[in-house]
Amino acid sequence: MPVYTCTTAQSTLSADIKAALAAEMTRIHSTVNHVPGTYVNVVFHELAPEDVYTDGRPAQPLLINGWVRTGHPEAQTSQLVAEIAAAATRVTGIPADRILVVIQNSPAHFAIEGGRVLPAPGEEQAWLRAQQEAK
Amino acid sequence: MPVYTCTTAQSTLSADIKAALAAEMTRIHSTVNHVPGTYVNVVFHELAPEDVYTDGRPAQPLLINGWVRTGHPEAQTSQLVAEIAAAATRVTGIPADRILVVIQNSPAHFAIEGGRVLPAPGEEQAWLRAQQEAK
Amino acid sequence: MPVYTCTTAQSTLSADIKAALAAEMTRIHSTVNHVPGTYVNVVFHELAPEDVYTDGRPAQPLLINGWVRTGHPEAQTSQLVAEIAAAATRVTGIPADRILVVIQNSPAHFAIEGGRVLPAPGEEQAWLRAQQEAK
Repeated sequence: MPVYTCTTAQSTLSADIKAALAAEMTRIHSTVNHVPGTYVNVVFHELAPEDVYTDGRPAQPLLINGWVRTGHPEAQTSQLVAEIAAAATRVTGIPADRILVVIQNSPAHFAIEGGRVLPAPGEEQAWLRAQQEAK
Repeated sequence: MPVYTCTTAQSTLSADIKAALAAEMTRIHSTVNHVPGTYVNVVFHELAPEDVYTDGRPAQPLLINGWVRTGHPEAQTSQLVAEIAAAATRVTGIPADRILVVIQNSPAHFAIEGGRVLPAPGEEQAWLRAQQEAK
Repeated sequence: MPVYTCTTAQSTLSADIKAALAAEMTRIHSTVNHVPGTYVNVVFHELAPEDVYTDGRPAQPLLINGWVRTGHPEAQTSQLVAEIAAAATRVTGIPADRILVVIQNSPAHFAIEGGRVLPAPGEEQAWLRAQQEAK
């Protein structure tokens, strides 16, 4: 259901670090938002040095943008963003002051996966059961 | 007015398939949301295999993210996302369980095209007439 | 705090123009939204010709997507999007009818930078002071 998009300048993250970060973000999202890992997507955009700027100058930030369904409890989203940000520093070694994590959201019924409209937060179990039974 | 961003691992879609999918998404958006096709943008991000993960493992999803103006009737947006998702499978042959379509939105007056603030949903005709007369 | 993502087909913008546009967008955002330039990120995605479509045909738009914190006064966001759009034409020479600027937003507390939850609009000064004192 969610998509996390990580944007960096080239050579900021090795292939191993990207795989480790994707795995850790998946584990965190799955645990905090009660979604099986099979529904968690993580992608990386590695851009040329001339394509990434902070303060109008070429820079090496790690920008993480996540999309989640609207309606999770506020405390849950706060926990999610805090754990994702902590994991980003822990896994990559990039200092926190170069990392920005932003969570965006839109209504679950504005999204479709596996051919079915996504469930509202809290209704995942019934949705997953129906998905399983359809197979 | 809208932008659709399609993200895949490299070699998931051929150039022909991308062109066909862009054309079909444009047709659908234009029909459902009453916007001339000249205002519909579709872009593709093709990422290296090590840059796309589902469930923390390298994967080949088709992730489609659309931006639309806030305020379309709910039923219209539901129809839009359903038709886009169906077209994605129909045109690409990728099974629905590897396709995620997400529509995000923000207010029309937070967007500018052709140098003019976008019209609220339902006010497209007057906006388009004024645009035409300015040419 | 904000991230601006500029998407074009390859060779639409030279390296010098990208640097100039990043600098100008940073200056505008910093002035209008009262955020130090050190917190303004701008990235560019340059895609293959077969990856960018308008009206279902290969095209050369300049698509600018910005993320800001929810809660800025409406007039401020309107000014921001107008100045960014004007700067895009002024700096790049691309005509306005090929430029789309969209601002999206989500709550400040859904974002973390420098290890700290972002301040709500209007509370930047106290947040920045605390950040400075922690160094």
